[in-house]
Amino acid sequence: MNTIQYPSKLLKNAVLSFTELPGIGQKTALRLVLHLLRQPRENVENFGHAIVTLRSEIKYCKKCHNISDTEICDICSNKQRQTDILCVVENVQDVMAIENTQQYKGLYHVLGGVISPMDGISPGSLEIESLAKRILPENIREVILALSTTMEGDTTNFYIYKKIAHLGIKITTIARGIAVGDELEYADEITLGRSILNRIDFNFNKGNF
Amino acid sequence: MNTIQYPSKLLKNAVLSFTELPGIGQKTALRLVLHLLRQPRENVENFGHAIVTLRSEIKYCKKCHNISDTEICDICSNKQRQTDILCVVENVQDVMAIENTQQYKGLYHVLGGVISPMDGISPGSLEIESLAKRILPENIREVILALSTTMEGDTTNFYIYKKIAHLGIKITTIARGIAVGDELEYADEITLGRSILNRIDFNFNKGNF
Repeated sequence: MNTIQYPSKLLKNAVLSFTELPGIGQKTALRLVLHLLRQPRENVENFGHAIVTLRSEIKYCKKCHNISDTEICDICSNKQRQTDILCVVENVQDVMAIENTQQYKGLYHVLGGVISPMDGISPGSLEIESLAKRILPENIREVILALSTTMEGDTTNFYIYKKIAHLGIKITTIARGIAVGDELEYADEITLGRSILNRIDFNFNKGNF
Repeated sequence: MNTIQYPSKLLKNAVLSFTELPGIGQKTALRLVLHLLRQPRENVENFGHAIVTLRSEIKYCKKCHNISDTEICDICSNKQRQTDILCVVENVQDVMAIENTQQYKGLYHVLGGVISPMDGISPGSLEIESLAKRILPENIREVILALSTTMEGDTTNFYIYKKIAHLGIKITTIARGIAVGDELEYADEITLGRSILNRIDFNFNKGNF
């Protein structure tokens, strides 16, 4: 596909722009571009405009570093939320996923990634320092570490723990275990092992069944 | 996923723009948009610009209706090509696919689709009239019908045949048969049946082996 011949430079530019997106090859890019060509001009201009505006005007919340249209995001400025509990997540998608569960009413802190020396992501390039700095002034009582269960996630958990343990607050992590709907025989042995060690009281009223 | 909550309207607009592309749902759209947010501002502006420019400045060749940067496309204006043979195709991708084989040196005629009453595509919305009109003035000797082997493709073939048969030129269609590399036992019976009826002389020198 590298030697593909385009009948037009404009077409080629648009296709190559699309191929820079993750998971989009030349064939898919061509299909998307030809789809856009068949749309009304106004729609295509809105599409281009939405992307450029997003990049130039998007803000990050000064408190939690989540994506926001304003200086302080809707979650941080929501008076209904519990302000003494912080959930530490990797990125925006994780905030959206947790919000979608409607089970959490506290605040967030978006790190912007996890520590990964292989990808050149050091603690300094993440929002860890700002996390440590907001705990005392904001009277945070509990920090929930909700990072991925990967080597990088565990490393980051440990690094954050070392940074904030001396502040004397409660530090928790989300429960690891067998996913709802999964069968035991197909669960990996580490997850299954941990789920036995960290077993919880069977309580029908709390939903632990 | 319909009740998904976005932390920002700008983000939501960009994601919803992407979901209008074929085969891109909200999760993929979000992934693409967040990828763009991590890119340098200049790159994102180029991306948006490439798309808007494409839509507003693209031309269609006046002779063959292929996508082009100029009034007459590179293929039609190429003096090295055989000008008395026309290959009728559905769209731009088909021109690119045939050009990629490097086996055809004639000209093209892009219909812009195939007749499909179900999708509201009538012969009048395709470039069939313009095809019939260019045959005599351009001294076309042969028309190759290279449409998909679908009901719609066959209908369109037949319609074009009826339109141009009286001009007394040669009308051919691309060979249907077992694809190179395919095994007979897995071929469908219509293809296999046709490949026996339309068998060709075994000729090592012409590549028919």
